[in-house]
Amino acid sequence: MTDRTWRIGVAGLGTVGAGLLTFLAEHPGFAPAGGRAVVSGVSARSRSRPRPFDISNLPWFDDPVALAQSPETDIFVELIGGSDGPAKAAVEAALAAGKPVVTANKALVAEHGAELAALAESKGAPLLFEAAVMGGTPAVKMVREALVGDDIKSVAGILNGTCNYILTEMEASGRSFAEVLAEAQRLGYAEADPTMDIGGFDAAHKISILAALAFGCAPNYAAAEVEGIAQVELLDIRMAKDLGYRIKLVASADRSEEGVLVRVHPSLAPLNHPLAQAGGALNALFIEGARVGRIFVQGPGAGAGPTAAAVAADIADVMAGAVRPVFQAPAGTLRPFEPVDPSRSLSRAYVRFLVKDEPGVIAAVSETLAEAGVSIESFLQKPVENADGVPIVLTTHAVAESVLAAAIERIAGLSAVLDKPRMLRIARI
Amino acid sequence: MTDRTWRIGVAGLGTVGAGLLTFLAEHPGFAPAGGRAVVSGVSARSRSRPRPFDISNLPWFDDPVALAQSPETDIFVELIGGSDGPAKAAVEAALAAGKPVVTANKALVAEHGAELAALAESKGAPLLFEAAVMGGTPAVKMVREALVGDDIKSVAGILNGTCNYILTEMEASGRSFAEVLAEAQRLGYAEADPTMDIGGFDAAHKISILAALAFGCAPNYAAAEVEGIAQVELLDIRMAKDLGYRIKLVASADRSEEGVLVRVHPSLAPLNHPLAQAGGALNALFIEGARVGRIFVQGPGAGAGPTAAAVAADIADVMAGAVRPVFQAPAGTLRPFEPVDPSRSLSRAYVRFLVKDEPGVIAAVSETLAEAGVSIESFLQKPVENADGVPIVLTTHAVAESVLAAAIERIAGLSAVLDKPRMLRIARI
Repeated sequence: MTDRTWRIGVAGLGTVGAGLLTFLAEHPGFAPAGGRAVVSGVSARSRSRPRPFDISNLPWFDDPVALAQSPETDIFVELIGGSDGPAKAAVEAALAAGKPVVTANKALVAEHGAELAALAESKGAPLLFEAAVMGGTPAVKMVREALVGDDIKSVAGILNGTCNYILTEMEASGRSFAEVLAEAQRLGYAEADPTMDIGGFDAAHKISILAALAFGCAPNYAAAEVEGIAQVELLDIRMAKDLGYRIKLVASADRSEEGVLVRVHPSLAPLNHPLAQAGGALNALFIEGARVGRIFVQGPGAGAGPTAAAVAADIADVMAGAVRPVFQAPAGTLRPFEPVDPSRSLSRAYVRFLVKDEPGVIAAVSETLAEAGVSIESFLQKPVENADGVPIVLTTHAVAESVLAAAIERIAGLSAVLDKPRMLRIARI
Repeated sequence: MTDRTWRIGVAGLGTVGAGLLTFLAEHPGFAPAGGRAVVSGVSARSRSRPRPFDISNLPWFDDPVALAQSPETDIFVELIGGSDGPAKAAVEAALAAGKPVVTANKALVAEHGAELAALAESKGAPLLFEAAVMGGTPAVKMVREALVGDDIKSVAGILNGTCNYILTEMEASGRSFAEVLAEAQRLGYAEADPTMDIGGFDAAHKISILAALAFGCAPNYAAAEVEGIAQVELLDIRMAKDLGYRIKLVASADRSEEGVLVRVHPSLAPLNHPLAQAGGALNALFIEGARVGRIFVQGPGAGAGPTAAAVAADIADVMAGAVRPVFQAPAGTLRPFEPVDPSRSLSRAYVRFLVKDEPGVIAAVSETLAEAGVSIESFLQKPVENADGVPIVLTTHAVAESVLAAAIERIAGLSAVLDKPRMLRIARI
């Protein structure tokens, strides 16, 4: 244990920054391993903006880079956000000066993690980002530290609370995506510009980070295959439920001998599966290891309290003084990220066709699938009132995605098929 | 990152020891933070016992204390087991010599944790025990490191895989406790002497450790209130299910202003609750914090692979060099463990009475409860063929346990009541 005083510079005073300053005010000297932590300076876009806590006694920095470089800053906490711009400049400045950095910035770590890790390790400065994934639920620590004695094969789960809230509300209230999104924005559960969340990009940042930690490769956000939830229709939520599934935005990273496949897409999970039961804004993650088997963790993925608690845990880790690679292995030895061609991967799928209500349609659809070698697992047709056509849905056994896509395209060309077919994958977990 | 070679002495070559040596053989030099790990010596009760791996090339120590003290041992791994005897002597010897210790020994840590922590911290030697709780599922790291930025209010879950397996099998197969236990022993899922597991003592060791980590108090195994599963009857499993519950052995630690309550007892969890759904040998844990809210983690709680992975993660932590208190706070500042009088705590309960099949019995039972101020939530009477009496079960709203116990005793004295009533708590989580 040590008597050292750690001076903490906090850049970014939004939700998480406010949560952190509140926490540190309630835990004066916070330093579980001994010593003492004090806030030595803050930086934000506006000094005068009304805040629920007093910053008048704290040294103010207009420029976060200056705060990062200040001789009064021992640990730099970056809560500005954004993959580039001032967040990146300030983190680089702190690391270049050999200062430990704690950040909640998933975009920064997912898009520039490899170069930041190389910089951090060359300077002997820790770079920690527990709050970047699953907020207060310690996914990063679990994968990076607790499972180093295992060979992780896959990580998959629900990593975006906004999407999970919207999908849960759509099912519960029977309202459309657009209606629920508008309400979520009014209530502050979704951002004014919700693209990062509903487009799946936030989840893609997070799963890219977990993939790097799990597989010992450099994070490669650009290689992630991303589909958001804007196209999820109420009809599919209902039809999937009739078949025993719930639609969730699932982020997954799988490692095989061919390489790594990182994806985010709406997926069907069986109703009795823990992922299907993680409702509202919850986040949930499965980690599958060769030795440990399957570990499941679930908790709040966002919010001032949980996320600030994760930042505080990282600050405590810096004070504890562990020397670890930023990702699973030293930056210089991270494997290149070798993306797998997703069209070759096997998936079970849910497919919906809107067809004319006339004889022979089902036969035509099922014959086309049979010719392509796609095996049907279940089939459902339900009457729909006042509709232009009849939706039929089916689930398939595992099939190469390219084969299924070709079969669907052929079916789309049938004269009895009224609309573009809809394909959703069934989660592999 | 470092180039250091870490020499690891492994005492105890049972299931976990075998798993660890296999893991280290498959990961030569295992050292995620850099450097190199080698096994420098082993110790076990019998050198010649047939083993699935070769130890003939490893230096052998008859006495684990000698291995702990050997100048060739940099990290001492204790996998002997038992709260006292050679395990304790060897761990003390290693710590006294300033050597890091990694152990899977829940009994040792739960019963002697405070004194071992004081010794470890006085010598600057880490004492790590991830494998002691939930095997490969990182409960210890979550509570000790990941949630230091929170104030934990309770931890509760399923911490003994053998009991969970037996209860799951009883429900699935309709066999009695004794039959399922005998089968589990034949299959090697239960020990020849199963007392530690089925008596709830193993779970009590684990929850005592988690309580110390969560609340910053010294572990106090002696203060735990423990009831095992030997008295769980098939009838109760069925009646509970009819009421929407599943019986699980739940270990819980709750902190209030009055103190800490640590208990292990068979409890009812609602069928749709994650604890009710954790079947077979799975372990599962809820952690509730003031800021983070509720985190749930589930995974394998035992087995060579998972437990060895946890030991390997601890070895990696030692090599990473963090300096942390053994529990939540330095040993000298751990709060005394102030046990709460359980009879004052409020619980919802399930109560079963075996009564004569005659008029007025239900009225007498419910009047007695009403007079005591016990409020009934649900009530169930089912005909039972070829039985001496009729079982009636009820669930109560929250009530002081002492009040409920007195009411049950009064009912037991009624002439129409044939047998000792059975009370089970409904899990608070």
